[in-house]
Amino acid sequence: MADAPGTGTGTAWEPGPELLRVARLDHDRAARRGYPEAVLCEPKTPDQVAAIAAEVAAAGTPTLFTRVREDQVDAVLTALPDAHHDAVARLVAWPPQPPAPTGGLVVVLSAGTSDLAVAREAELTARHLGRATELVVDVGVAGLHRVLAQLDLLRSARVVVVAAGMDGALPSVVAGLVSCPVVAIPTSVGYGAAFGGVAPLLSMLNACSPGVAVVNIDNGYGGGHLAAQIAAG
Amino acid sequence: MADAPGTGTGTAWEPGPELLRVARLDHDRAARRGYPEAVLCEPKTPDQVAAIAAEVAAAGTPTLFTRVREDQVDAVLTALPDAHHDAVARLVAWPPQPPAPTGGLVVVLSAGTSDLAVAREAELTARHLGRATELVVDVGVAGLHRVLAQLDLLRSARVVVVAAGMDGALPSVVAGLVSCPVVAIPTSVGYGAAFGGVAPLLSMLNACSPGVAVVNIDNGYGGGHLAAQIAAG
Amino acid sequence: MADAPGTGTGTAWEPGPELLRVARLDHDRAARRGYPEAVLCEPKTPDQVAAIAAEVAAAGTPTLFTRVREDQVDAVLTALPDAHHDAVARLVAWPPQPPAPTGGLVVVLSAGTSDLAVAREAELTARHLGRATELVVDVGVAGLHRVLAQLDLLRSARVVVVAAGMDGALPSVVAGLVSCPVVAIPTSVGYGAAFGGVAPLLSMLNACSPGVAVVNIDNGYGGGHLAAQIAAG
Amino acid sequence: MADAPGTGTGTAWEPGPELLRVARLDHDRAARRGYPEAVLCEPKTPDQVAAIAAEVAAAGTPTLFTRVREDQVDAVLTALPDAHHDAVARLVAWPPQPPAPTGGLVVVLSAGTSDLAVAREAELTARHLGRATELVVDVGVAGLHRVLAQLDLLRSARVVVVAAGMDGALPSVVAGLVSCPVVAIPTSVGYGAAFGGVAPLLSMLNACSPGVAVVNIDNGYGGGHLAAQIAAG
Amino acid sequence: MADAPGTGTGTAWEPGPELLRVARLDHDRAARRGYPEAVLCEPKTPDQVAAIAAEVAAAGTPTLFTRVREDQVDAVLTALPDAHHDAVARLVAWPPQPPAPTGGLVVVLSAGTSDLAVAREAELTARHLGRATELVVDVGVAGLHRVLAQLDLLRSARVVVVAAGMDGALPSVVAGLVSCPVVAIPTSVGYGAAFGGVAPLLSMLNACSPGVAVVNIDNGYGGGHLAAQIAAG
Amino acid sequence: MADAPGTGTGTAWEPGPELLRVARLDHDRAARRGYPEAVLCEPKTPDQVAAIAAEVAAAGTPTLFTRVREDQVDAVLTALPDAHHDAVARLVAWPPQPPAPTGGLVVVLSAGTSDLAVAREAELTARHLGRATELVVDVGVAGLHRVLAQLDLLRSARVVVVAAGMDGALPSVVAGLVSCPVVAIPTSVGYGAAFGGVAPLLSMLNACSPGVAVVNIDNGYGGGHLAAQIAAG
Amino acid sequence: MADAPGTGTGTAWEPGPELLRVARLDHDRAARRGYPEAVLCEPKTPDQVAAIAAEVAAAGTPTLFTRVREDQVDAVLTALPDAHHDAVARLVAWPPQPPAPTGGLVVVLSAGTSDLAVAREAELTARHLGRATELVVDVGVAGLHRVLAQLDLLRSARVVVVAAGMDGALPSVVAGLVSCPVVAIPTSVGYGAAFGGVAPLLSMLNACSPGVAVVNIDNGYGGGHLAAQIAAG
Amino acid sequence: MADAPGTGTGTAWEPGPELLRVARLDHDRAARRGYPEAVLCEPKTPDQVAAIAAEVAAAGTPTLFTRVREDQVDAVLTALPDAHHDAVARLVAWPPQPPAPTGGLVVVLSAGTSDLAVAREAELTARHLGRATELVVDVGVAGLHRVLAQLDLLRSARVVVVAAGMDGALPSVVAGLVSCPVVAIPTSVGYGAAFGGVAPLLSMLNACSPGVAVVNIDNGYGGGHLAAQIAAG
Repeated sequence: MADAPGTGTGTAWEPGPELLRVARLDHDRAARRGYPEAVLCEPKTPDQVAAIAAEVAAAGTPTLFTRVREDQVDAVLTALPDAHHDAVARLVAWPPQPPAPTGGLVVVLSAGTSDLAVAREAELTARHLGRATELVVDVGVAGLHRVLAQLDLLRSARVVVVAAGMDGALPSVVAGLVSCPVVAIPTSVGYGAAFGGVAPLLSMLNACSPGVAVVNIDNGYGGGHLAAQIAAG
Repeated sequence: MADAPGTGTGTAWEPGPELLRVARLDHDRAARRGYPEAVLCEPKTPDQVAAIAAEVAAAGTPTLFTRVREDQVDAVLTALPDAHHDAVARLVAWPPQPPAPTGGLVVVLSAGTSDLAVAREAELTARHLGRATELVVDVGVAGLHRVLAQLDLLRSARVVVVAAGMDGALPSVVAGLVSCPVVAIPTSVGYGAAFGGVAPLLSMLNACSPGVAVVNIDNGYGGGHLAAQIAAG
Repeated sequence: MADAPGTGTGTAWEPGPELLRVARLDHDRAARRGYPEAVLCEPKTPDQVAAIAAEVAAAGTPTLFTRVREDQVDAVLTALPDAHHDAVARLVAWPPQPPAPTGGLVVVLSAGTSDLAVAREAELTARHLGRATELVVDVGVAGLHRVLAQLDLLRSARVVVVAAGMDGALPSVVAGLVSCPVVAIPTSVGYGAAFGGVAPLLSMLNACSPGVAVVNIDNGYGGGHLAAQIAAG
Repeated sequence: MADAPGTGTGTAWEPGPELLRVARLDHDRAARRGYPEAVLCEPKTPDQVAAIAAEVAAAGTPTLFTRVREDQVDAVLTALPDAHHDAVARLVAWPPQPPAPTGGLVVVLSAGTSDLAVAREAELTARHLGRATELVVDVGVAGLHRVLAQLDLLRSARVVVVAAGMDGALPSVVAGLVSCPVVAIPTSVGYGAAFGGVAPLLSMLNACSPGVAVVNIDNGYGGGHLAAQIAAG
Repeated sequence: MADAPGTGTGTAWEPGPELLRVARLDHDRAARRGYPEAVLCEPKTPDQVAAIAAEVAAAGTPTLFTRVREDQVDAVLTALPDAHHDAVARLVAWPPQPPAPTGGLVVVLSAGTSDLAVAREAELTARHLGRATELVVDVGVAGLHRVLAQLDLLRSARVVVVAAGMDGALPSVVAGLVSCPVVAIPTSVGYGAAFGGVAPLLSMLNACSPGVAVVNIDNGYGGGHLAAQIAAG
Repeated sequence: MADAPGTGTGTAWEPGPELLRVARLDHDRAARRGYPEAVLCEPKTPDQVAAIAAEVAAAGTPTLFTRVREDQVDAVLTALPDAHHDAVARLVAWPPQPPAPTGGLVVVLSAGTSDLAVAREAELTARHLGRATELVVDVGVAGLHRVLAQLDLLRSARVVVVAAGMDGALPSVVAGLVSCPVVAIPTSVGYGAAFGGVAPLLSMLNACSPGVAVVNIDNGYGGGHLAAQIAAG
Repeated sequence: MADAPGTGTGTAWEPGPELLRVARLDHDRAARRGYPEAVLCEPKTPDQVAAIAAEVAAAGTPTLFTRVREDQVDAVLTALPDAHHDAVARLVAWPPQPPAPTGGLVVVLSAGTSDLAVAREAELTARHLGRATELVVDVGVAGLHRVLAQLDLLRSARVVVVAAGMDGALPSVVAGLVSCPVVAIPTSVGYGAAFGGVAPLLSMLNACSPGVAVVNIDNGYGGGHLAAQIAAG
Repeated sequence: MADAPGTGTGTAWEPGPELLRVARLDHDRAARRGYPEAVLCEPKTPDQVAAIAAEVAAAGTPTLFTRVREDQVDAVLTALPDAHHDAVARLVAWPPQPPAPTGGLVVVLSAGTSDLAVAREAELTARHLGRATELVVDVGVAGLHRVLAQLDLLRSARVVVVAAGMDGALPSVVAGLVSCPVVAIPTSVGYGAAFGGVAPLLSMLNACSPGVAVVNIDNGYGGGHLAAQIAAG
């Protein structure tokens, strides 16, 4: 593994070839589950990401690379030069063009400007999984008129995705206004007693309105994937 | 409020009529959101529940009474004698018969026998919101063959609901086997480091497989409601 | 101490008279701080409460007894037979009549029916500290029209008190609609990931709208006291 | 978005114009709530802050930029060159001069030297919302005489703001000495079991003295805003 | 074990005699550590407590039985009829008379009336370990004059023990006023965000004043023991 | 389900036969995993336990019933009258006699008398899974000589199981003295900052000595099972 | 200590020679416990590590240096130039060659590619403690067929080590498939509600299948050590 | 404040002179409490530290500067050039020579090499407060013989200070061996479920042996101060 070479002059026991096989891509996942493969890049080394991207290129498997760190972007684009990198969402998609949309509309709300990265990741994921999407930014509950102004759009959706930090109150308010499910993504936006997204996570799990599906903090990919499944067919 | 009478011989300031109006039922919710009203009974006094049930009876609004404590059952059935009380799910439904099912199939899994109450609450809720349902009990990951034996049923569902406590691993396993969304309900079954459902809650929020929608611990009603919305239309 | 007598036949070292002096009432508090004394009853023994009530009766100090357990009510009313006991709020007030109101209006909202006990404790406290009050029940964010219907009342207040459990979203919504401060009281209503009021507590501390003053979970007395101070003069 | 450009050579699906509209400033907030707009800068990119500052300049809306990171200061000052930047409080105010003070006096206490940044943010916020303010530094409970020396000043206030970390004991002590409300701001000063401000947060929520209004950890802006509302009119 | 007999008609494998030896009393502890043995009764069965008391009686080892539940008192007094049972402190001491005091004075403060049980357990423990003690009740920081009135007594102590719940601010205030160590015992008095004593525990660990020794929540025995060691010789 | 019958006079939708099949016993587990089946009774209703016991009786599958509540004992013994009930360990074993021991010795330590129930559950489990066992009670680190006195026994073991609450220090000390693995079972014994077993759980996970295998709080069954597997063959 | 020199011109009190003796290596540990010494490097300064490595070289004690930071590698290799440094596992072993394997097979599973570093540390540790090992990478539960494909290998092991982050579900699934113990190592891989490894830690402690031995988060060394002990002899 | 200058071209409202008075040193603390002043440097800016050091120099007050960051050392030494800086303990003492020792002996144990910084801070603090001290390094419970080898030294102490991370078991073991109090300082050494020192903190609060006084995580200064007070006179 080039970026973490062994050192020392001793003749050591050497590991077997398993290190060369850093990941077992699930190439039949599209067949089994109906959606492209995804690779969570953040905890991997650039070398591991490069190896996976090369395998994707060789197999031609549609793949989303998520939470791509800046030092990993080149590792992907070298192997897949025509992939699309969205820096806001920290996502690389290959092939770059999403499929033609089917199913219902996915509306994505970003409660504040600072939740945009997560909301955008959710939107792009749903797009690349085959749904039509709309993204609306900065519609937090502190100015309720901003939410109410989107009521027609919200009610035209098959599913609404809401990314919100701080008090995480928006999904509960939205779920009370529509009949479709709401996918709630807590974000780590906030400070102090927001505890890195715990506060909105708990709000969303305790939403007064039924119909709120919660995913992990900052999990734009998961929220978009779930929305695409809900709005399918 | 009969069960909490004021005492003391002094002539005191008396509250206004707001106490007589203990709840504002959302009778137009069915119109606005498309689903019946629900009343969370557990934290209310029997008198409050009785007053709400009387209002339901007067308005004829289809209603689910959830988490009904034993000392509250009579309060509901006195006002709504033909309601159906399911003791396992701690749920009273009025009217007692669910509507004819529409939309897709909701499959509910109970990971262990001890998760049955929550799973049953989810199933009944989805039924009364208009979906066809199937419930399978005791299919935890400790005996994987029990899960795999249900693969055909799971793949026929529009949405799978999984109630699981302890390690909460089942939703992740199931989501890897199907293409539809999985609604994961952590239960408070377990002890010690299960922390009243926190362990499965965190497992589910961190599911390796995308497509897992998490609701609150023991929230069978919420899980069933969400599933009914996903499987609608 | 009659309810916890020493036993055993040995001749033991006996404690001094400090046990007879179980509390040092702050009789000049009204002078120094301008408000009556309060006694938190819940963690005390009935004997301790009785001793304090007797001291209140002897000194004639206006006093609120809060969180009075059922087995403590008689202990207070024996010493202060004309006191007023409000069973919903678990509060005993002496003297029973609040003073004539001065200052601005205190509006108290109870998000759900189950938050009523806490909201009522807040209202009564503000009353007995000399404010005019209004209480509105069951105006949660799941039915936003219920909040908006109270807009005129809310905007006539000098301070709004909001008692809410579960997602605790209401204070944030209300604070976005009014110019006065909002006192937010998280309640322990809810289950699972509500964690006995932690979820609404965190929501309120992270409210998107500025102007939200948070007090302890279920602290109706503290919320009402703070509101009375804000609305003074 | 210039600081996060898309890369990759593929022809990708391009997002709509929503990204250009990163924030929906609440220009009528002053009318509705009576106070200027505020922008929490910390979680935003410099480009997002610059875009918002430009919109503020265009609309002429009085605005406070809070928690401004060093790499964001220029983004604001380029659009609003006559704004005032207070580096201690990490706050940029536009217009730079606060309005002539009305209402009661806001006294701000900083328990330790290390709490100064938060205390200063609270003071400046209250100033720019129209109140007269006084700031006293390093008056912690370890040297009680320092608190007692300020008793006359404290009793002249309409509201006292206390920023304190570590044991967070000062608000409880102060609230026992004055009749006005105390706004308590826990700070993240401390280490170990201070848990980033959790220790003083819990102290303040459990203050022995009533009349303590708690806001989020390090939330100088929120504490100053609340104080300004309390001391209004 | 009489209170938990085996049942079932089968001939089962039977455990060895280790169950008959439920505890190994440390009879030479007085020699090695200089202080009597102590038995924490609360988590034990009455039978286990009775067996231990019988062993104490046989060996004549001075012993404190702490946190004695009501259903355990007789188990101790049957074996040690001349022992002294203090019901407030839930403590049984044998022999009943403490030794003649040596060393310095231990002053024990109970912040509120509700902290008395813990404070009393600390005082009695220190007494039975050979120190002179003074107990002062209800001297919380909400009325600072009550603390200041005890300044002479506090400054005559070799160690001050403070039992306090809620904000746990008193040890920090006291430690700022005296030169001797302060033993701080957080109590579980309080509700909501007191979290069963976590709030005062954290306050005490983060005391602004040095010289604060913290023990476990409600650990009156431990606090008294530590104080007796500090004030020894 | 007899103990939770449906009520209400309405003709309701009735659930299918899945409720009659409350558990799917894993009768081939002994073949697949080599050990008997186990049934965690605590969270089940007596009826559910009775149904399972009847199935066990019918199939003749060796089974351990763990954490049997007092109101569940009869439910098991009615179906399996020759089963052995150990009341200390809250365990019912069928068949009552453990198999003849094979493999290495399992030594079980109970740090305090109060940890005996958990230690005994571990010992009995290991016995019924086919190991020879020894149980030593009350050997906590506060009297180190009690541990050192068992050194020969400890060093003769193939695995040592340690049940300990409070500081949970014993497994670390023991693991430093022996070469075999130590199975550490944290118990919920203790109070205050023991947090129901969290304190010893964390101690054990952070043991200075390697070779410590941690299981869930109070999980005597799991600890005994793991020990039996380690000491096998 | 060269990397932390005292400064200031004053003539200060100087510490004794204890600082020169920064560690007391346990050279007879191999004799007493049967395994080499290990040095946790991460929290030490490079100088401390260098001093320890020099002592190892002088004494010739077989030693594993674990969690070696990049700035510490040279400190070890200078003193022990023929040691083997594995950069993936962040481990330096001296002597470089593991002993010839004895005992049973240790199979190590890495649930995801990102868990490889921890899994590799476990494997190398078990190797250097004298066991034969096999490592399999990327066999998470999201693609169950990847686990089932390894069934023969798993069933040939004396112990299986599983490193897994996120939902931590793999150990529970594996333990249900094999009869040998499973050592579960939670990893800090994941984000949001994974809480740095808490989510998989709790999953593993609550595994549905018995036979799961849990070690600290990211503790590859501890997991490998425990596995080597289990598979010994 | 030079390191945080205001910017922007507007003529702004300027703060009063309170900012120039960043700290109120407690120059009569030595008289009142008997010990020198201390300044916690870590959370302060270098300018604030410099200002305080200058005030110390002017007043001639003996002072300890604790937790001095590398970028703050010069700020102190410029004002107090003859101060003593101990880089291991991150402490600057002025005057550099501690007073001649009085009172009893303070023995400080560092459980591991990595706890040395904290242990050294405790030792130096006790020295500068006037006690004789001894420091012993690397005596953790994993090698019990290392503790037992120090028994004579430990029993000659008036107080033992123990700094320990990870399982924090050492104070409990030591307290069982001596009759004097033990001051336990949990350190943040460790990883994973050590949670930055929470694990040893909880161990120490739950020590099986009485006589353990706990201070904040990594609080070497506080531990040393407390020890000096205990060993006084």
